[in-house]
Amino acid sequence: MRAEIIAVGTELLLGQIVNTNAQYLSEELAKIGIDVYFHTVVGDNRARLCEVIQQAQTRADLLVFSGGLGPTEDDLTKETVADIAGVPLEIHAESLRRMEQFFSSRGRTMTDNNRKQALVFAGGTVFLNDNGTAPGVALTSGAHHYVLLPGPPRELKPMFRNDVLPYLRSLLPAEEVVHSRVLRFFGIGESQLETEIVDIIRAQRNPTIAPLAKEGEVTVRLTAKASSAKEAEALMAETEKRIRARVGRYLYGVNDTSLADVVVDQLRTAKQTVAVAESCTGGLASHMLTQVPGSSAVFSGGIVCYSVGSKRQLLGVPEEVLATCGTVSETTARLLAEGAKDRFGSDYGIGITGVAGPDAVEDKPVGHVFIALARPTGETVVKLLKLAGLRPTIQANAAKQALFLLYKYFTHTLKNER
Amino acid sequence: MRAEIIAVGTELLLGQIVNTNAQYLSEELAKIGIDVYFHTVVGDNRARLCEVIQQAQTRADLLVFSGGLGPTEDDLTKETVADIAGVPLEIHAESLRRMEQFFSSRGRTMTDNNRKQALVFAGGTVFLNDNGTAPGVALTSGAHHYVLLPGPPRELKPMFRNDVLPYLRSLLPAEEVVHSRVLRFFGIGESQLETEIVDIIRAQRNPTIAPLAKEGEVTVRLTAKASSAKEAEALMAETEKRIRARVGRYLYGVNDTSLADVVVDQLRTAKQTVAVAESCTGGLASHMLTQVPGSSAVFSGGIVCYSVGSKRQLLGVPEEVLATCGTVSETTARLLAEGAKDRFGSDYGIGITGVAGPDAVEDKPVGHVFIALARPTGETVVKLLKLAGLRPTIQANAAKQALFLLYKYFTHTLKNER
Repeated sequence: MRAEIIAVGTELLLGQIVNTNAQYLSEELAKIGIDVYFHTVVGDNRARLCEVIQQAQTRADLLVFSGGLGPTEDDLTKETVADIAGVPLEIHAESLRRMEQFFSSRGRTMTDNNRKQALVFAGGTVFLNDNGTAPGVALTSGAHHYVLLPGPPRELKPMFRNDVLPYLRSLLPAEEVVHSRVLRFFGIGESQLETEIVDIIRAQRNPTIAPLAKEGEVTVRLTAKASSAKEAEALMAETEKRIRARVGRYLYGVNDTSLADVVVDQLRTAKQTVAVAESCTGGLASHMLTQVPGSSAVFSGGIVCYSVGSKRQLLGVPEEVLATCGTVSETTARLLAEGAKDRFGSDYGIGITGVAGPDAVEDKPVGHVFIALARPTGETVVKLLKLAGLRPTIQANAAKQALFLLYKYFTHTLKNER
Repeated sequence: MRAEIIAVGTELLLGQIVNTNAQYLSEELAKIGIDVYFHTVVGDNRARLCEVIQQAQTRADLLVFSGGLGPTEDDLTKETVADIAGVPLEIHAESLRRMEQFFSSRGRTMTDNNRKQALVFAGGTVFLNDNGTAPGVALTSGAHHYVLLPGPPRELKPMFRNDVLPYLRSLLPAEEVVHSRVLRFFGIGESQLETEIVDIIRAQRNPTIAPLAKEGEVTVRLTAKASSAKEAEALMAETEKRIRARVGRYLYGVNDTSLADVVVDQLRTAKQTVAVAESCTGGLASHMLTQVPGSSAVFSGGIVCYSVGSKRQLLGVPEEVLATCGTVSETTARLLAEGAKDRFGSDYGIGITGVAGPDAVEDKPVGHVFIALARPTGETVVKLLKLAGLRPTIQANAAKQALFLLYKYFTHTLKNER
């Protein structure tokens, strides 16, 4: 099956937002073996949208739209597809009810233009929206399948994962299944990882192996085609085993697992807790941990000790250490980790202090960051990072490195205890 | 002038990378008054690329390409455009010399396929590449202008800014300038904002007015065309004044300013400081503030009081308050804000406690969040939010609402003092 992804919205053509939906949808469609040959972006203009749809009909079986399902006059994706396919729109009672509830639960009145969002294709499929007001809709007409999804990624993604994916699978021929799996690595660069497994990548056709660098991490995607799910999974398991044998020490998780997920999971299993004292990352390490649902069982808390005074008063770093070694130093990082562990009474303590930029601090260059891990027993471990990039990159990388430090020592300890 | 942006690369269709170039180029073209009507993405395939170019010729005067200028056989943007325009390619001596130097300075031998990158349009324009090997090229043929740029953003962006922008300006009629400005709102929904100013939007052609919802905020872009910069700015100022008169109380900034930028700036001007005690947002409010370079002058620090114990021990919320009112309560939020202010000795204190989900807490439903602001004088202000969405959306929205609370009271106080 060939697909074209069509994003509708003048804000994309003005450069106000990036078309991340096209990337997400392409990746997801590739996973189930649907080939994407074109992306198109068009503004909120009926004539031009018509032109784009008619063009896409000549070269794709499946047209996936994002955007233009909202309440305003500019939102006309559904209306235009309905016109072209010659299918009427009708009010979807369940969507209307949800929308009314959405507004009343917020103590707001639903304005009349919102009703338009509950219109769906007669005889089509409806995907309920758990994270916003406009439902997704789908229609098969003649040789073409149309899938229309809301523009905001936080609405589009869960809807796609939960409802659209099964719907699309049902359109595909049954004899071929495509499964894929993402291996996630940290602490190794993309080219180094590729070098280590280049012979496996070259020799291998099924599953295919695709490395990709992203936000300080490297992922490797395996995609297998087979006649059954079991066979596809077996093909991937075999390849994963070979890759793990080479670079397994950098592998921390699979698929959508984040470093924080893994760390929270490890702590939960061990019934242990962690606390964080962070300076240059300004709360990001704590935030990463608390993004994981259920992290309250293992995350005791954090202190963002951004000022010199707070390192002293809230974490007990002595005045003379700050004066002699500096706020960005091995000793300060160690005392922050130990201070966090003490103050919150947790099993582990993480300390982070460094220079996120744009300016150097106490003659330490931008990118110098000390991360420390205080443990239930044994000495506190401190590591110096020399990170590249701008302020947000340095902050994100430092926070992830700190979580990775906990992950590694945790894994190591468990192994030795067994 | 009408433009179409064409990105060439199979990696985009596989969802391995996001088409950020289209966003960047759209934004830059909008700034100089070139209208972008379509984005297209096509793979490394000559027949499909031909189809896309011929289609674009029917609807655009200017075709801007990114990608497909590299050394491999897959890179065929230049060759395809040359074929269609009927213009030969020739070696560009300066680009070849630079390329040879690029390789020799890295101690590497230039392989033969790299020579292909020095091919340019006979009689066309060349943009030297200061950050990579492939030069950009441009050609005017018949009624169409073609601009071909390298795919990597770190090569494309400086080349565009330094060389392509002046080149494009030279193609434009001299008498027209286009200026634009983004107004940023918080605390009002997109449809409500549109309803409030719908008559202005409808009546207005210059500047045009385009509302957009993004991450809990709403922006309104004004775009004015005029014969001088001064005139364009005056047109926008007039419209901005009318919009402010209706919804000015929700407006916090213009253009690229974030809520955190505004708050840090207000505090810096007043030489005052803020500290944060946050539970359900897990460090995000602190992180937002510390994303602003120079925030160390105004952000004293934060406590992520995720556990019940830490609310008591680190922020002094009495046991009986936690037991009677609950950890998610107006009283606890107030004591967190006051505790943060006390502990860090700051002028303002922010407290956040609520239910980010997925599970309810102490019979409070998901999305219930109390935010509090302790001030230098007067009572602490507490506000109950009822937020929708999944955990990350609730966390982000709660943190922004807390910053907005500080922004509003700060603005209000300043007004009364004057």
